[in-house]
Amino acid sequence: MNQDYIKPDNWSIIEEGFDAERVKSSESLFSIGNGAMGQRANFEESYSGATFQGSYIAGIYYPDKTKVGWWKNGYPEYFAKVLNAPSWIGINVTINGEALDLNACKEVKNFRRELNMKEGWYNRSFEAVLQNGTAVAVNVTRFLSLTEDELGVIKYEVKLVNGSATITYSPYIDAGVTNEDANWEEKFWEPLDVQHEGDSAFVTARTFKTHFTVATYMHNSLFVNEKKQDVTPQNIEIGNDKIQFCYTAEAAQGETAALVKFGGYTVSLNHKESELIDAAKNVIASAQIKRYSTLLEEQKEVWAKIWEMADITIDGDVKAQQGIRFNIFQLNQTYLGKDPRLNIGPKGFTGEKYGGSTYWDTEAYCIPFYMATKDQQVARNLLTYRYNHLEKAIENAAKLGFTNGAALYPMVTMNGEECHNEWEITFEEIHRNGAIAFAIYNYYRFTGDYSYIPEKGLEVLIGIARFWQQRATFSSHKKRYVILGVTGPNEYENNVNNNFYTNYIAKWCIDYAIEQIAKVKSDYNEDYSRIMAKANLNDDEIKQWKKVADNMYFPYSEEHGVYLQQDNFLDKELIPVSELDRSQRPINQKWSWDRILRSCYIKQADVLQGFYFFEDHFSKEQLAKHFDFYEPLTVHESSLSPCVHSIQAAGLGRMEQAYTFYLRTSRLDLDDYNKEVEEGLHITSMAGTWMSIVEGFGGMRVKNDTLHFEPRIPEQWQGYSFKINFRNQILKVSIQQGETKFNLEGDKELTVFVNGKEVKVQPNALVTV
Amino acid sequence: MNQDYIKPDNWSIIEEGFDAERVKSSESLFSIGNGAMGQRANFEESYSGATFQGSYIAGIYYPDKTKVGWWKNGYPEYFAKVLNAPSWIGINVTINGEALDLNACKEVKNFRRELNMKEGWYNRSFEAVLQNGTAVAVNVTRFLSLTEDELGVIKYEVKLVNGSATITYSPYIDAGVTNEDANWEEKFWEPLDVQHEGDSAFVTARTFKTHFTVATYMHNSLFVNEKKQDVTPQNIEIGNDKIQFCYTAEAAQGETAALVKFGGYTVSLNHKESELIDAAKNVIASAQIKRYSTLLEEQKEVWAKIWEMADITIDGDVKAQQGIRFNIFQLNQTYLGKDPRLNIGPKGFTGEKYGGSTYWDTEAYCIPFYMATKDQQVARNLLTYRYNHLEKAIENAAKLGFTNGAALYPMVTMNGEECHNEWEITFEEIHRNGAIAFAIYNYYRFTGDYSYIPEKGLEVLIGIARFWQQRATFSSHKKRYVILGVTGPNEYENNVNNNFYTNYIAKWCIDYAIEQIAKVKSDYNEDYSRIMAKANLNDDEIKQWKKVADNMYFPYSEEHGVYLQQDNFLDKELIPVSELDRSQRPINQKWSWDRILRSCYIKQADVLQGFYFFEDHFSKEQLAKHFDFYEPLTVHESSLSPCVHSIQAAGLGRMEQAYTFYLRTSRLDLDDYNKEVEEGLHITSMAGTWMSIVEGFGGMRVKNDTLHFEPRIPEQWQGYSFKINFRNQILKVSIQQGETKFNLEGDKELTVFVNGKEVKVQPNALVTV
Repeated sequence: MNQDYIKPDNWSIIEEGFDAERVKSSESLFSIGNGAMGQRANFEESYSGATFQGSYIAGIYYPDKTKVGWWKNGYPEYFAKVLNAPSWIGINVTINGEALDLNACKEVKNFRRELNMKEGWYNRSFEAVLQNGTAVAVNVTRFLSLTEDELGVIKYEVKLVNGSATITYSPYIDAGVTNEDANWEEKFWEPLDVQHEGDSAFVTARTFKTHFTVATYMHNSLFVNEKKQDVTPQNIEIGNDKIQFCYTAEAAQGETAALVKFGGYTVSLNHKESELIDAAKNVIASAQIKRYSTLLEEQKEVWAKIWEMADITIDGDVKAQQGIRFNIFQLNQTYLGKDPRLNIGPKGFTGEKYGGSTYWDTEAYCIPFYMATKDQQVARNLLTYRYNHLEKAIENAAKLGFTNGAALYPMVTMNGEECHNEWEITFEEIHRNGAIAFAIYNYYRFTGDYSYIPEKGLEVLIGIARFWQQRATFSSHKKRYVILGVTGPNEYENNVNNNFYTNYIAKWCIDYAIEQIAKVKSDYNEDYSRIMAKANLNDDEIKQWKKVADNMYFPYSEEHGVYLQQDNFLDKELIPVSELDRSQRPINQKWSWDRILRSCYIKQADVLQGFYFFEDHFSKEQLAKHFDFYEPLTVHESSLSPCVHSIQAAGLGRMEQAYTFYLRTSRLDLDDYNKEVEEGLHITSMAGTWMSIVEGFGGMRVKNDTLHFEPRIPEQWQGYSFKINFRNQILKVSIQQGETKFNLEGDKELTVFVNGKEVKVQPNALVTV
Repeated sequence: MNQDYIKPDNWSIIEEGFDAERVKSSESLFSIGNGAMGQRANFEESYSGATFQGSYIAGIYYPDKTKVGWWKNGYPEYFAKVLNAPSWIGINVTINGEALDLNACKEVKNFRRELNMKEGWYNRSFEAVLQNGTAVAVNVTRFLSLTEDELGVIKYEVKLVNGSATITYSPYIDAGVTNEDANWEEKFWEPLDVQHEGDSAFVTARTFKTHFTVATYMHNSLFVNEKKQDVTPQNIEIGNDKIQFCYTAEAAQGETAALVKFGGYTVSLNHKESELIDAAKNVIASAQIKRYSTLLEEQKEVWAKIWEMADITIDGDVKAQQGIRFNIFQLNQTYLGKDPRLNIGPKGFTGEKYGGSTYWDTEAYCIPFYMATKDQQVARNLLTYRYNHLEKAIENAAKLGFTNGAALYPMVTMNGEECHNEWEITFEEIHRNGAIAFAIYNYYRFTGDYSYIPEKGLEVLIGIARFWQQRATFSSHKKRYVILGVTGPNEYENNVNNNFYTNYIAKWCIDYAIEQIAKVKSDYNEDYSRIMAKANLNDDEIKQWKKVADNMYFPYSEEHGVYLQQDNFLDKELIPVSELDRSQRPINQKWSWDRILRSCYIKQADVLQGFYFFEDHFSKEQLAKHFDFYEPLTVHESSLSPCVHSIQAAGLGRMEQAYTFYLRTSRLDLDDYNKEVEEGLHITSMAGTWMSIVEGFGGMRVKNDTLHFEPRIPEQWQGYSFKINFRNQILKVSIQQGETKFNLEGDKELTVFVNGKEVKVQPNALVTV
């Protein structure tokens, strides 16, 4: 953890002072993205220090041949990797013949980075004295356009501080990139073509195996003292996967030479392969017309609109404010919800770790955020993503011996196929199926849009119910259906029996599917007939499902009055985390796996995750009992852990604890709690931070088509506010110590409940409670 | 399974007819070894068909960098691989300029292989018509000398069947070899030096990382019609890791040209590095003096002595006879017990699979065979191997969080360090520690040589007892000590709690260690003081051990009257293997791992393995009950499974079942039950075959320093006999339908019990019972 690294600021992420040790961490923290592409905050100019280069394009992946020690039947042949894409940001700079390299300068001062979250740009500035004695002030601004999502913009300015100098800018694009996490050091990109025309250049490359074709382009303009120079690129260097231009400017002391570089990608996901370069030329032409200043203005406008819907304000706690905005900003950089082929990778566009783009994180953590801060179509797109993968989920289940249309969604995926390869996760962490069904329920609960279920959702629910019915077996010993050999959300227990969470959500999935079949039968008869015929489902089979759901086993301890995480949990030595020596933590770095598995330590909410999803199935007293039993045994070594605990602690009125968990989730990356931010950001858990405030402190719930709140406020804060897009009206909720205000942007009265008391909120009027 | 592949014969393994599809399988089955080196039955001449080249040197290994999908703390950095060694057997042959290649001849007939187990040589003969029309008869004999264990001998004869021909022999040695199972396609050998002198050549190479230096040598003599030719090698081709000579002979129809090639290795394990070539020259000089014929005679004599001690005869069942001799022969080819640095790899010198040389197979299966058929020093060497690795076992335990000298022996090892890398095996299949303690007990029980325990064994027992005491935890729920998160001998269950076998042997290990401490204290006081000081052990710690042993938990089912394989076994669906569709087997090839794990199917004896080791702790009725409960759920997909079941079935008088299991274990490779013999032979389970006869059918046990027998005979056999080296006297036991004969080679009367009845056997006299 490093609390002094990032300067506190309400709207910006700021780093001051150059520290080569922090370059990789800052490359993660200052990453930018626009939903279609993204990149780590790598320097444009050459840098000889340690760096982790990364540019990524949404939906472009590579099936990297599986690497395992010991093969198990059913393992996927490959692990779909987020693919390091050709780089378009590179600009080599020389000053009087010496390469500008922050790792080789005589002196670097006033180094500063700023990621302006309000306006959506990243700036870096510094003064450097080169080995040749020339002193320059460098100022670079970069952004990825939200209006033109194939376009990125860089303005690179060098001002002469002393003497005069010949400054050369050598902008390049380079498809000769590799992944740091490649299993076999294979090349992922096949270079196809390199072209140039005037100030523009184009490198076309295709991924091996997946055959995504990408044209990476650049266009450059040279300015001296803000005046565009009428020059053409010199010394054009062309390789088979790279092209570099050279522009030269003379500048005297106090003068500024600048290069404006447009760059980005056009990809075969969105264009005909033969039209990629034309498409890129169109983007360039449009950018040339708008120019840097207009593009930047547009960027600010779009971000202003995003914040208009999604902002959370916190008064009196700048670190908490910065944390939540960073989380909301990064989520929006990663996924904007336009394209149902895309999803939310755990590292977004900030790193390679965890490979595939989609985990159960999307359904369990991200959908609530997107539902409440975007148009409902966005959440619908995320659901549709899984609907489109239903066939693959059925194939995946068949590989594991299931039949008759049973669907097991993958643990990790890009295109619907499983790509993870640890048996205890891939084959056994099957609770993920439950979250996918739960998200359908949650979508309807929040949006009131039932149409998704007859159109698409019910087929998914049927496949999932079938899986659970087949996966459960009857224990003649327990006289109940049991689910043997699973890994629950707590991945620190593997191959356990009757994980409470898994059994509970399995039963719920079946019950919910049966309910929806009945509802669709009565209200959407045409859909019903289509679906039943397609799924080849009949009442006899549904009876089998019901038998399993009605007789599901749940391990319970009379002694402790709690549901047990799994059958044998009580055989463990239950020693609270507080008694564990600090030197032993994090246990996932200090202990061998067997020791972790037989310990009582819980990585993230497991029984409590069930209580989070199905809160209304249990009393507050039950929640308190389970929280008191499990939380002291929880090490929170998953980024997804603190948020659920923060919400539940707040619900139980334990505000100090809730606040501590909140800080941990909201500043996980900014303060680098886990000393790993250089690998990339924890994108999906950022949605959990949002939930900590809205569902935790705000106590927001949707019950019977109505918003409920139980507002609470940490004593460290003067006030906070958030907005909810509830059924196409925007409700702003402002909570101070002692009062809550509601402000509705919409056109019809909205009834909400505050601590159980009905409140009517009129459009465009302020209500104080 | 392929029952017609190998011709039935009492003393030889014979293949007739050339089948390119079988070449790799035969390369395994006709492998030869002499304890110090071994090789697959690769052709000497070039072969363009599918082949698996393998030469191996005992104790020479390479630490191949670990390959895993997901790293876990505590995994070893490398997997020690049996190393494919430089090849010395190669002889390229051309006839009138055309390379002899069985895959490219116009015709091949009378192809025949014979592995003569009685005399210890391998012969291959065939007639071939080349594309150029020349017809030749080839006859090749090869053996690895048991008297000079650095020496191998080949006599390669070509007889002209038609016309006359120029025959060239190009013998070579080649260190440019690789392992098929290399993790990263690394080179394992660094070539150092290539030399030649007269008819001899030497290639010196060193293993990377482990720095074993090996001089591979050859010496060649050319004969025409049995007459040695006074020629020198021509066209010497020298590479950096290879050297090839060329000898030319002219032969007319009916004439024979032969090359006698001596070759082998001198290694830095046994010689100074600077003297390797001199050592090789000494071997060559001695071989030149003895010549082919004397060397072969010596070979026959040494094998005659081995058989004198170890032979088992079976009358009236040639396949059973051939099976048991093949097993005894291969065990002797693999390990002769001279060197405590060596051990018995699961594939011996016949393949690469399973990497390291030592598994718990040695203690659980092989030691009884070596104790009974060799001098007791051999078993002592095997025990000493583990004693010498005690420090590494303590380090290994420390990596997993154990302290204070607790020892966990590795699952797979070459030099005492763990080299396996699956958490559920490496970290959890800890019962292996028990077998290592049991072997110490078993050695004393059989040989009566207590001296090993105060000298070495007790230190091992203490380290193991410490491990178990620390590994067990107290369940406040069960009020007993439990052992959580293990894999038992049945590897088709992982991370289970309270595996009966593991808990039982853990308790036994502690009890036995405490007993031996007391005995050494009273009878070997000097050793006692030394050991207690070295181990820093005191009575308080021993009391802790005892508390664990006295309060160990064993899962038991009142309903079934059996100990349960693990806590949750009864939650499984208990569907007998007989009801499992044939198409689903072997389940390890047909099912995904999770499905196997949650099924009731057992890979190999688990609870029954405990009943095998501790037979006298249980009644016959208990054995029958457990056998009837577990065997029907057992798929025997481990080569170590049928033998234990054969012994127990025989003990229960179920001879038909015992015989079926016997055939399966004894002809596992000859009949290729598992369709994988091309990967190499199952060496360690071959000792289990021996046990099936001696302990199963013969019912041999040692109780209170006395041999007991319960002779039984399968109805398919007229009679069988075996020999036991019991405390330096050789007892021959011959069992016919209805009578048992004893014949003692020794000098003192031996009392044995036959079905509980005392029998006195006088030296060199026959007793019939």
